[in-house]
Amino acid sequence: MSGDVTYLDNAATSWPKPPGVAQAIVECLEREAGNPGRSGHRLSLAAGRRVYAVREAVAELFGAPDPVRVIFTHNGTMAVNMALGGLLAPGDRVVCTGMEHNAVMRPLRDLEAHGVTVVVAPCDAAGRLDLDAFARAVEAAPTRMVVLNHASNVTGTLCPVAEAAAVARRAGALVLLDAAQTAGTVPIDMEALGVDLLAFTGHKGLLGPSGTGGLILGERVNAAEMVPLLRGGTGSRSAQERQPPDLPDRFEAGTVNFAGIAGLGAGLEALAAMGGPAAVGQREGELAQRLWEGLSEIPGVRLYGSADRTERVAVVSFTIDGLTVSEVGCRLDDEYGILTRVGLHCAPSAHRTIGTFPTGTVRLSPGPFTTVDQIDRTIQAVRAIARGV
Amino acid sequence: MSGDVTYLDNAATSWPKPPGVAQAIVECLEREAGNPGRSGHRLSLAAGRRVYAVREAVAELFGAPDPVRVIFTHNGTMAVNMALGGLLAPGDRVVCTGMEHNAVMRPLRDLEAHGVTVVVAPCDAAGRLDLDAFARAVEAAPTRMVVLNHASNVTGTLCPVAEAAAVARRAGALVLLDAAQTAGTVPIDMEALGVDLLAFTGHKGLLGPSGTGGLILGERVNAAEMVPLLRGGTGSRSAQERQPPDLPDRFEAGTVNFAGIAGLGAGLEALAAMGGPAAVGQREGELAQRLWEGLSEIPGVRLYGSADRTERVAVVSFTIDGLTVSEVGCRLDDEYGILTRVGLHCAPSAHRTIGTFPTGTVRLSPGPFTTVDQIDRTIQAVRAIARGV
Repeated sequence: MSGDVTYLDNAATSWPKPPGVAQAIVECLEREAGNPGRSGHRLSLAAGRRVYAVREAVAELFGAPDPVRVIFTHNGTMAVNMALGGLLAPGDRVVCTGMEHNAVMRPLRDLEAHGVTVVVAPCDAAGRLDLDAFARAVEAAPTRMVVLNHASNVTGTLCPVAEAAAVARRAGALVLLDAAQTAGTVPIDMEALGVDLLAFTGHKGLLGPSGTGGLILGERVNAAEMVPLLRGGTGSRSAQERQPPDLPDRFEAGTVNFAGIAGLGAGLEALAAMGGPAAVGQREGELAQRLWEGLSEIPGVRLYGSADRTERVAVVSFTIDGLTVSEVGCRLDDEYGILTRVGLHCAPSAHRTIGTFPTGTVRLSPGPFTTVDQIDRTIQAVRAIARGV
Repeated sequence: MSGDVTYLDNAATSWPKPPGVAQAIVECLEREAGNPGRSGHRLSLAAGRRVYAVREAVAELFGAPDPVRVIFTHNGTMAVNMALGGLLAPGDRVVCTGMEHNAVMRPLRDLEAHGVTVVVAPCDAAGRLDLDAFARAVEAAPTRMVVLNHASNVTGTLCPVAEAAAVARRAGALVLLDAAQTAGTVPIDMEALGVDLLAFTGHKGLLGPSGTGGLILGERVNAAEMVPLLRGGTGSRSAQERQPPDLPDRFEAGTVNFAGIAGLGAGLEALAAMGGPAAVGQREGELAQRLWEGLSEIPGVRLYGSADRTERVAVVSFTIDGLTVSEVGCRLDDEYGILTRVGLHCAPSAHRTIGTFPTGTVRLSPGPFTTVDQIDRTIQAVRAIARGV
């Protein structure tokens, strides 16, 4: 099916997956499917070793202080909820940016209803964070946490994480980085960037399957004081009816998705074999730039985000004057086999910032397996659709 | 590897999986891996259809009022946390049984620390619920919820759900059934049993992969008043920064484990092809009975739970006088290739009830692919180990 379609929806989930991903899941289900960390027999131990190896690989990729501080979750959203709900209490203040996804805004609006002060620092119409306004927002009152959208899922616009994190740290705030759109395509070193909590998803740039993701706790996070999102069996300290303090168990109640984690491990290996995030990001960035340049020459097409390719990841949002985004998306799929995502992309705040609320945009997101030919055919298709109006 | 080992740890996770499970995951990753419910293109729609079909199959299996009231979760523990945290508030009272797993006790102890009254209704030394004492506990004060362990993961002892649920309903309490050890081997009809909330895991009796499970909301559960465990993008009502009221979206923030759910669907199909829960449970029950009878004849072996096979599922816990459970478990694995789980099984409350706290038991749990020959060899192995002391 890969030959029939042009898949430009990697920002929703990467596709196709490297062949090793499905293979690792099958292998795990066939040969290692004991419940990791539960029983002491060989299958359980094999599954436990596999999970730990992937934990180490994730820790190394992101510069985590210790593999046990990598908490595996169901998805990136669960990781964000775990961080926000686990560390923010009534009376706390949190500053986020104007480009957040609803994975951040919905939990924050709920916390706001329970006494947490939420401040949204403004971004410009290209989605770029106004660092001065951000610093003023952070410094205006004691701030417990800062949430940074590493790259927008709408425009791809990158956040100046190191600079913003430095501001936050000076103010004594913890830094939560939502890396849903960057993990796997932008090099991330938590320590170097000044990030305390890194929320990632496994099924996008890390090329793993659905059902995977995680939260990494930096050294400044006091895990013992962080409230667990889930409580339950951990295979450790089973005599106790209190959630144990040990990591990662404290935050991983119940059976982890060991088959999915095996697949994520294969995704990470494939990513490394392709040269790692910097190389993959560079390649995808070139494709996105080609797309941007091609689309920018088409009369009636409007592009959103920064024209400077160094300021964004490989996500290109556009609209065509006089056509609804749904119409454009359907025609690209039906007539050209080009798969996109249209609308608000679960990020109303970002669309308000760039001025496309409530109708949204058509989003094109190349991945590591996208070809130059597919990009060129997409430009031609958009040109034909725009011309037809 | 299946030929090399005797896997008697199906209560931790079922193994092997039916061949269709891995195949469905591979198929989903290769052909349908658009993000379900997000984009409108063919891959996303295919993934969405697949997820919905499994939702329907789960609803049908358990007599759910509507497929949209099936909420997919990361595991059974997440489902229990969702139900308890979503419906209990400070001042509420909850009654559970003396055989609960830590998936129930750990969240309950935390809620207790936040003002929820937790009452543990006693079970006898075989793990049987004392229905009179249970009724007195429920009727002693206004009770918001009752939590029933359908079958113990330690002894397999079944709870008289219909009777207990009738008591709870008369008292106006909601009934949460923890079906971790019964889904797939005991027929469950929520309506007929009087169950309001059913928490299940996908990777045990339903024969699916890790990373799957769910919570089913009966008609008496007011979903609009139930507090979501996670908030985030749902692909619906994207303009809003509040969690939407629609089901299942309200409780399924972030990307669902669509590849895992595809595997779960194949597990359900295999289960149906084997005759469904009643037939599989019958067959496993016969194996467990053979095991029970064989072990009961060995001097020095103590069995736990009810000797009446109609009172339990296929879980047999034992100890050997003069030997630690770890020693027995290791010898069964090392010398005989028999895989078990020893210790407290994340259920200290249950082990206190049956008198095996804090050392625990050796647990044998046959599955749908266990053979009579494997059972007989296990009895011989235990006999040899017991004789050697």
